[in-house]
Amino acid sequence: MFETAEVGHAIAKEVYAAEVPALRAALLDAQFDALQARKFATVIVIAGVDGAGKGETVNLLTEWLDPRQVEVHGFGPPTDEEAARPVKWRFWRALPPRGKLGIMFGSWYTQPIVARALGQTSDSDLDQALERINRFERMLADEGILLLKFWFHLSKKAQKRRLRKLESDPRTRWRVTDQDWKNFKKYDAFCDVSAKAVRETDMGYAPWIIVEGEDARYRGLTVAKTLLAGMRGRLDNPPTKQVPLAPPPQPSIDSRNILDTVDLAARLDKGEYEARLEDLQGRLALLCRNPKFRRMSVVAAFEGWDAAGKGGAIRRVAGAMDARFYDIVPVAAPTEEERRQPYLWRFWRRLPARGRTTIFDRTWYGRVLVERVEGFCSDADWLRAYSEINDFEEQLHDHNVVLCKFWLHVSPEEQMRRFTERQASEFKRFKITEEDWRNREKWQPYVHAVCDMVDRTSTEIAPWTLVAAEDKYSARIQVLQTLCDRIEGAMDRIKGK
Amino acid sequence: MFETAEVGHAIAKEVYAAEVPALRAALLDAQFDALQARKFATVIVIAGVDGAGKGETVNLLTEWLDPRQVEVHGFGPPTDEEAARPVKWRFWRALPPRGKLGIMFGSWYTQPIVARALGQTSDSDLDQALERINRFERMLADEGILLLKFWFHLSKKAQKRRLRKLESDPRTRWRVTDQDWKNFKKYDAFCDVSAKAVRETDMGYAPWIIVEGEDARYRGLTVAKTLLAGMRGRLDNPPTKQVPLAPPPQPSIDSRNILDTVDLAARLDKGEYEARLEDLQGRLALLCRNPKFRRMSVVAAFEGWDAAGKGGAIRRVAGAMDARFYDIVPVAAPTEEERRQPYLWRFWRRLPARGRTTIFDRTWYGRVLVERVEGFCSDADWLRAYSEINDFEEQLHDHNVVLCKFWLHVSPEEQMRRFTERQASEFKRFKITEEDWRNREKWQPYVHAVCDMVDRTSTEIAPWTLVAAEDKYSARIQVLQTLCDRIEGAMDRIKGK
Repeated sequence: MFETAEVGHAIAKEVYAAEVPALRAALLDAQFDALQARKFATVIVIAGVDGAGKGETVNLLTEWLDPRQVEVHGFGPPTDEEAARPVKWRFWRALPPRGKLGIMFGSWYTQPIVARALGQTSDSDLDQALERINRFERMLADEGILLLKFWFHLSKKAQKRRLRKLESDPRTRWRVTDQDWKNFKKYDAFCDVSAKAVRETDMGYAPWIIVEGEDARYRGLTVAKTLLAGMRGRLDNPPTKQVPLAPPPQPSIDSRNILDTVDLAARLDKGEYEARLEDLQGRLALLCRNPKFRRMSVVAAFEGWDAAGKGGAIRRVAGAMDARFYDIVPVAAPTEEERRQPYLWRFWRRLPARGRTTIFDRTWYGRVLVERVEGFCSDADWLRAYSEINDFEEQLHDHNVVLCKFWLHVSPEEQMRRFTERQASEFKRFKITEEDWRNREKWQPYVHAVCDMVDRTSTEIAPWTLVAAEDKYSARIQVLQTLCDRIEGAMDRIKGK
Repeated sequence: MFETAEVGHAIAKEVYAAEVPALRAALLDAQFDALQARKFATVIVIAGVDGAGKGETVNLLTEWLDPRQVEVHGFGPPTDEEAARPVKWRFWRALPPRGKLGIMFGSWYTQPIVARALGQTSDSDLDQALERINRFERMLADEGILLLKFWFHLSKKAQKRRLRKLESDPRTRWRVTDQDWKNFKKYDAFCDVSAKAVRETDMGYAPWIIVEGEDARYRGLTVAKTLLAGMRGRLDNPPTKQVPLAPPPQPSIDSRNILDTVDLAARLDKGEYEARLEDLQGRLALLCRNPKFRRMSVVAAFEGWDAAGKGGAIRRVAGAMDARFYDIVPVAAPTEEERRQPYLWRFWRRLPARGRTTIFDRTWYGRVLVERVEGFCSDADWLRAYSEINDFEEQLHDHNVVLCKFWLHVSPEEQMRRFTERQASEFKRFKITEEDWRNREKWQPYVHAVCDMVDRTSTEIAPWTLVAAEDKYSARIQVLQTLCDRIEGAMDRIKGK
């Protein structure tokens, strides 16, 4: 994999001096055009062996580019904040918005490669990590990100030479640590693992560019020219809108669907409701105070028809919890900042740390519900979202996040009754808008979208709970009951006390 | 995952009778149009639980469709032919050509799911198998195949009912075997593994359609309507040509590249050549007769400049082998049959069985060499080919195929000398064509393509050997030496004797 980066690439001083001014001007132009267009973000991954000039190249880029439009992220060991959340959280929050550049110095590759080279993980752990990286990067590319990955390489001899040279100069001696020499002893192991990682993740949409690291002028020019070619390519030849390669899911051909299996006749009388509510809220309160709760977190995701009672159910859940340890996130149209990011970004940023709960009032399923039905995204976009969402939820699951997804179901007749009641009520009138009436007209397309959603995303790790919400009392009890059961189930799987 | 296929879907007899005639006519039309257009092949995967009507649905489809354009492939345990080759070989050879339909009854999903459900493999084995399936299906989709995957589901109760019913009727009793009841006892395990498999491989470009299997009319209509929608979608909205999302590899920015590291001054005098040739041919002959050779196979892949001496090197390799156990495959422009398949198909079909050798005179690398340089495929096509080729070669490696890839390198001056010599020789004149002269004019673009090829596909499992071919003697010795060393290395890794 790395042979072509061991041929002694070098650029003469005069050649470099002659080329740089035009290159810098072109880069600044491309950066300006990208900022104006706001169509894509650029993510630059800087990876490779120690001493191959990664840091110097990052410094060169920030010198040559307009630094206001560039964010550099160095990833060392995770901070407390980061360690408390799913592994990819730190990378999600570092993504640059459309129009800007992000330089990832250290990245999602570091941990899997280092852990395998040091023998802390197995081959199949590495395979799994690389597969997830591929899915992650595919999603970034499909979301419009220009992804360029630079691997800085040095032959074993050249790395030794380089470390010796740094050590011999008092001004750079501090840069060589004992750890560097320890890593050097594992050069071959690192090289094998890296070659595999590069091979398995070298994709047309997210290519690796192998850079020979010995000559500073060569590596600087190579990175800058590749970046320029990438940005100009995207500016001058924007990707065409994709046509789906396979048909969208077809509506059920008989009159039945999964929503019809919800027993809308379920009813609770007030007395029974109040008794069970007290009981379940007590149980939930105790669960949240269980020491094991500090090693997990909870995401409660609410979707459902307008006026199905999401707000009321959420209040009953929150009512049992300590206000310092939960957040309620109402999801409306994305903000400007959010529109400049992949659609899952605004949910990633709100994920709970360990020991905490986030309640989403509407969720990432907007992509396959309202965005699909209203045509806010292309067919190809919402069709790929199912597997992207499953990947996202798998990452939550792997981090001990209990994810409960509720669809609150009511009949169209009951919805109409509630709309009318809201309009008649002085203090509920604000809850009903023109949009609610418009959505109601699209009941059937929404039914189709909800059934597909359940079909494709009700998984063994994150099942959907279809809540019979025709009666608010029984809906709230079903929600609380499900939450308590799922949290208890997760606690049983946590070892220790 | 399967909840929506447990709601009791059914189609009334009258509804069915009213819909079928128009549906059948539309299907035949779509089939005819697809055959005329010859733009895409349709692959239908039929999978799911026993007794859910898979066989009946296949029969229905072959009844409704024009059977001349449909191939049905049932995959039981691999035949001897199939077991002797890489796992996916049997599926590759079953792919329908553009314009036609292939029904895969049993497929690449069967073995991974069954093995995991019976506890013969681990979770990470399953993960790895599913990842490879995803890469395989992505490639099929990118190569223009319409891929529809039907999962036939029955609830546990319904499956029991169905098996009982089949057993109670003398005409169908034969269809229920002891194995079916044994599998039924593992229903839950099968269901869990299947749900995971379906979740991890449900992609917009290769969707799973979950079909409730109890009602014959429902399942027949569902499959036929989905197939019709898929074919009509592709006929009426053909995919747009993809623009690459990241830039193609840029040429090396200094004057150096990996080809320059080849020592073209290497020379052997005739005496030394003949002595070493005899020695190496003897060694190779013995290796091919080693009992361990029957548990492996060899693929020797030759690429190189025109007139670099591929033919001569191939003859020296073949000369050491038993003619019953090797094939030489000269690769020219693809035949009509081959053009109707994914580009790797014509190489898959020629892979050696265990104990055999295939020598390819030019290879699958044509995609990233001549097709790239001449513009015979789009940039997006050859850009994705590197990882597809790496996947292909990984499958060879996993099956104990020793893959030796040779690039025969000569200088442009030496090439010119040989061209002139060929033209002057009565019995070599046929070896030089107009095309050779045209290729020569594109020397630089080819250098760029060769360097990228080595960069991206010289992997630890299938390294490139750059052969110094300025001197034919030393080139042949280098080829034979490499082959012998690689075969011996592989034998050392095979246990037993």
